[in-house]
Amino acid sequence: MPESWFLNKMEKLEEIRKIYEELKTVQMVKKRECLFRRKSFLQLEKYKCLLHNGKTIFREKILKNHKEGNAAIILPITENGEYILAIEPRVFTKDTVDIGFPAGYIEEDENPRRAAIRELEEETGYQPESLEFVGSYYPDQGCSGACNYYYIARNCKKIGTQHLDEGEFIKYVLVTEEELEKIVNLGMIKGLNSAYLLERVKNRKEKR
Amino acid sequence: MPESWFLNKMEKLEEIRKIYEELKTVQMVKKRECLFRRKSFLQLEKYKCLLHNGKTIFREKILKNHKEGNAAIILPITENGEYILAIEPRVFTKDTVDIGFPAGYIEEDENPRRAAIRELEEETGYQPESLEFVGSYYPDQGCSGACNYYYIARNCKKIGTQHLDEGEFIKYVLVTEEELEKIVNLGMIKGLNSAYLLERVKNRKEKR
Repeated sequence: MPESWFLNKMEKLEEIRKIYEELKTVQMVKKRECLFRRKSFLQLEKYKCLLHNGKTIFREKILKNHKEGNAAIILPITENGEYILAIEPRVFTKDTVDIGFPAGYIEEDENPRRAAIRELEEETGYQPESLEFVGSYYPDQGCSGACNYYYIARNCKKIGTQHLDEGEFIKYVLVTEEELEKIVNLGMIKGLNSAYLLERVKNRKEKR
Repeated sequence: MPESWFLNKMEKLEEIRKIYEELKTVQMVKKRECLFRRKSFLQLEKYKCLLHNGKTIFREKILKNHKEGNAAIILPITENGEYILAIEPRVFTKDTVDIGFPAGYIEEDENPRRAAIRELEEETGYQPESLEFVGSYYPDQGCSGACNYYYIARNCKKIGTQHLDEGEFIKYVLVTEEELEKIVNLGMIKGLNSAYLLERVKNRKEKR
């Protein structure tokens, strides 16, 4: 491999780093809040941001329960090789119900891994033997600081019963790999989080 | 294949359909709105929802510019086989800047495909010869009716210059497949939309 190849790689990354430097935020000031009068799950905030390039931009931020709204999403496989799917009301979607992988918000002072185990247990009563972290991504960078953490939970065993919060109505089903494929092919998985995890798992398999 | 196999498949789908029926929303009433005093991009609404199982749940909805906030995300490949990445301020993230695929909100009376072509052209000045739809997913079903539409844009040609809205600061870079891989391996792609598209493209390649 010629030396110039390395030089070019470095030049491209250098170019990107220069743009990062130019566009980074050097000062951020909260200008306004928007709250419901009564207790609510969602809040909004307005910010004025000074960029390193001297420009000022205004951005609005969504908060969930006065926090960023970080979430854990878990693809659970039982000790018998079945997948666990959760079905719950999704009132703002076309079907008003959706099927996908268990997920939930990370609580304050809780690490993502612990949240993943807790949410899986609350929604299904299953506990994994091992939990593999597959990545973390911002689902809505333009309007939120929320970060989603993705896991594959293997050899899950039933250790108790489902125990949900008030106003949560979640049913879970165990499906074989063939049944999961059928559900995917029918286009029943409509949430981006579940779709991302499915693609990740597919990629693993094809590499084997 | 034994007849019982088909029976089981049907029974599982039947079980899922019954749960859908039970959890679907039969009535939804808007109870409250939350607006900033001045013009803003984000709005909140509170809903009371009656489910088919007789239970009542309360959900809050995020609106963007008084609409659902549907978006188009485009993975663009130039006629020379280079990928186009956009770098822009993401003030609420850790680095305050991120690199990823071009994307933007779908305007009223605009179809997703048209929005994809428009956003790519506005952010980069490139126009694709063909646009392949790869899927649509809800990024935040719990609090939003927004749906994201994903595309692969092939044989993109430079037909003009970048033209951005006020307050938009986007720089784009062309990278080779090797450079893209390097960027991905360095963990620089932090947005879920770009991460999803990357996994999709990877899956295609490994199937070939």
